[in-house]
Amino acid sequence: MTGKTAFETRYGFARNEVLLSNWRESPFNRWSFQNLGELVPTAPVAATPGSVEAPVRDLSGLLGEKVSIASAPETVAEFLTRSTSDALTVMKAGKVIGDWFAPNMDFGARHIIFSISKSVTSIIAGILEGEGVFDPEAPVTQYIPEAVGSAYADASCRHVLDMSVSLDFEEAYLDPESAFARYRRATLWNPGGGTESLREFILTLQRLEEPHGKTFRYRSPNSDLLGLLLERASGQRFPDLMREKLWLPLGAVSEASIGVDMEGTARTAGGISVTPRDLARIGEMMRQGGTANGRGIVPEGWVRDTTVAGGSAETWQRGTMVHLFPKGRYRNKWYQTGAANGAFCGIGIHGQWLYVDPKMEVVIAKMGSQPVPEDYPLEREIVAFFEALSGMV
Amino acid sequence: MTGKTAFETRYGFARNEVLLSNWRESPFNRWSFQNLGELVPTAPVAATPGSVEAPVRDLSGLLGEKVSIASAPETVAEFLTRSTSDALTVMKAGKVIGDWFAPNMDFGARHIIFSISKSVTSIIAGILEGEGVFDPEAPVTQYIPEAVGSAYADASCRHVLDMSVSLDFEEAYLDPESAFARYRRATLWNPGGGTESLREFILTLQRLEEPHGKTFRYRSPNSDLLGLLLERASGQRFPDLMREKLWLPLGAVSEASIGVDMEGTARTAGGISVTPRDLARIGEMMRQGGTANGRGIVPEGWVRDTTVAGGSAETWQRGTMVHLFPKGRYRNKWYQTGAANGAFCGIGIHGQWLYVDPKMEVVIAKMGSQPVPEDYPLEREIVAFFEALSGMV
Repeated sequence: MTGKTAFETRYGFARNEVLLSNWRESPFNRWSFQNLGELVPTAPVAATPGSVEAPVRDLSGLLGEKVSIASAPETVAEFLTRSTSDALTVMKAGKVIGDWFAPNMDFGARHIIFSISKSVTSIIAGILEGEGVFDPEAPVTQYIPEAVGSAYADASCRHVLDMSVSLDFEEAYLDPESAFARYRRATLWNPGGGTESLREFILTLQRLEEPHGKTFRYRSPNSDLLGLLLERASGQRFPDLMREKLWLPLGAVSEASIGVDMEGTARTAGGISVTPRDLARIGEMMRQGGTANGRGIVPEGWVRDTTVAGGSAETWQRGTMVHLFPKGRYRNKWYQTGAANGAFCGIGIHGQWLYVDPKMEVVIAKMGSQPVPEDYPLEREIVAFFEALSGMV
Repeated sequence: MTGKTAFETRYGFARNEVLLSNWRESPFNRWSFQNLGELVPTAPVAATPGSVEAPVRDLSGLLGEKVSIASAPETVAEFLTRSTSDALTVMKAGKVIGDWFAPNMDFGARHIIFSISKSVTSIIAGILEGEGVFDPEAPVTQYIPEAVGSAYADASCRHVLDMSVSLDFEEAYLDPESAFARYRRATLWNPGGGTESLREFILTLQRLEEPHGKTFRYRSPNSDLLGLLLERASGQRFPDLMREKLWLPLGAVSEASIGVDMEGTARTAGGISVTPRDLARIGEMMRQGGTANGRGIVPEGWVRDTTVAGGSAETWQRGTMVHLFPKGRYRNKWYQTGAANGAFCGIGIHGQWLYVDPKMEVVIAKMGSQPVPEDYPLEREIVAFFEALSGMV
């Protein structure tokens, strides 16, 4: 055998070029985001044995239709490519309208959803709340007594759920020397991990002077802490909770996976990988008020609070993401867009979206491998794209 | 929630006690051997989507029958427990006679098979040989030119396949300061890895003065190198080869997984995890001369060479495992026991066995979590147990 390997031919780089030090960078992320388990430890979340996904459904004609997102009109396919998307699944009124995949992703593949993991974890919190196992208004220390020396000493689970902990921590994705870098090592996502666990790291964090609950501060360690809170409240590991409470009753078809740290703590802030179809199923369940296949998954009141009624506009206005949703709110790790269509969504870095338009009965799951974690102008375009797409299907 | 977690109740220790530094030790290995992916990076080897395993079949009466392995008779169940076994699946004439699981393992779970991975990898070599893609008699440098400065400079693939490379490397499982420890780090199986790849490590190894091919020297890096040889010969990654060439045609029911190093090189020497049923399927295919479900998987001539005809008794006699099989031979990473029943097997540390008795038409897959990697007296007892069991089913 001479010349390029099958891998090189497909991806344009060799497998051995993808390392723990560069896996989130372009072009390597076009492969690695579908293969997190080859880079870090992961735990499986199995679907019902024997489940088979319904055949891929081409988006066909829709891909050639024009949308006017940027200055010049472009086709749906052109926008998906320009936005470095990997996959798109669109549902309308509970039915899959179609799927799209970039050449670097196959139907049936899992893809990391980054911070949509937070939204998924929050659903488990809602389920456990409904069971009386988890109290979102309880102090963090009720479940994690050793949080007493940390920023969370006087925070409630509600602050954690709504990202309003007054946490002294900057989400500096690209600075290798920050506390964020220490966080990345604790998650095992960057080289040099394995000495400080995620739990240990989180409990070293300290608070700002401002009271909790006042400002929307997007800080991922809160969401890893949420996973720990649920584990402590239930006595079950998060991957087991996710399987029993969500994955099986939802009728998810494919195994999900979730990154774990050096002692097995799940990366509930960003480490979940699922297929686009299963991601869309989560959105559809939320659109249906917490029901899937005629079965209640999470209380309807919790869904309503999360997607419509809850959250503080004031807190959101004091945050840094107001540019994306000027009339938005953030509740239980879901974004209410504040748009007239009542849309809500989960968002992950590098182009992960789960967008639900209740008015049009549309659910859109989009996965991507954008070269940079955050790209505000593109994010605004993606929202506009979803709004346009919802009206086209 | 107070008191023990579900995990602690089941396993007797907490999940966060299991670390990269102790996962192969008892009691942690009673869980970790079924969950390698939570400790190190792994690549999946998917089965046919929708495959479902036939229901578990109790070994029932057989478990209470007496065997005389040690000084006093004991029941089959007692022996399985005494040998710290996790699972047993027995087939006779192509049919599953029954399964047994220790309380720490569920039906359907994957378990690491350690060095039976070598035997599986060798099957892929046999398949690629049959396709004319891989030549076992070729020099290693034909596929890996950069091996020229290493022990493998003048070794053939045959030497690699038969563990007769004159390699200056001691398989010191428990010494933390040895070259073996450097190997463990390169595999990512011990803390401190991520700076030297498996390939880089292997190609630093040097040879002894003795010619290649003379003495059976069990050195695992040879078997990791075999995976690299197959990747170079085929231009495909090992997990893809294993799926396409073996897992799908074999009719394996469950996803397998294989550990990978910092650059994605598969741990073909020891990193494969499979279910007991799928492991038994491999044995049955070998018993059937390379055929499964009426379909040729690997050439019959290769199976015959591997399990009956090939290998050097002289080379074996000069090795250190002669105590286990006094009349044995080692060919293509399978052991010919040399017993009258013509039995052959694959063996992995900590109690992993795939034993085939062609005369009695019996296949036995046994998984374990023995406290120490190697336990010669127990290994001899296990062989005696298999011989007894083959006559009882």
